[in-house]
Amino acid sequence: MVRLISLYNQPDDPAAFDAHYRDVHAPIVRRYPNLRGMRLTRADGIGGRPAAYYLMAEMTFDSRADLDEALVSDPGRESGRDLRNFAAAGVTLFVADDENATDG
Amino acid sequence: MVRLISLYNQPDDPAAFDAHYRDVHAPIVRRYPNLRGMRLTRADGIGGRPAAYYLMAEMTFDSRADLDEALVSDPGRESGRDLRNFAAAGVTLFVADDENATDG
Repeated sequence: MVRLISLYNQPDDPAAFDAHYRDVHAPIVRRYPNLRGMRLTRADGIGGRPAAYYLMAEMTFDSRADLDEALVSDPGRESGRDLRNFAAAGVTLFVADDENATDG
Repeated sequence: MVRLISLYNQPDDPAAFDAHYRDVHAPIVRRYPNLRGMRLTRADGIGGRPAAYYLMAEMTFDSRADLDEALVSDPGRESGRDLRNFAAAGVTLFVADDENATDG
């Protein structure tokens, strides 16, 4: 399994962010070819401090090749362009490939 | 399930980071009370760019209360102090609680 992980910074207007994510962005992502699953988690802080991120999105694929194909697909490019519409506060993306994972 | 997620910035000396993580830090984390699992994933970049982070550590617990108990335990405090010994490049921590997650 391979995960595309998107970490969204705290938005200025969380309600507007949530509405756009739910009504516009998530439906685009659901059209990614090869997508096996999508999990959204509101991040929590530690020790009374706010979380470093607002939201974590984990999109799962069977392989890195499947993920790369999704990113260059029409919905992949559309979701990239859509970031400017709601994620002005910033987003950090990386890939977590089980091929490069160990259970510690 | 609740995950404590630690995202480590790219270290100046990856080999030294890896050795310290494996030989010193991970053994401390394995002593956390209530720890259900620990997964380490070397992050990969997207589109030919280097990953935003070097390593993601995911520590799983049954509940947020179990996680909080682990963090204030002796190994929890010891692992926090140990960060200065190998993670000078920086680390970002947050909590992903399935209670705050939805499958998109």
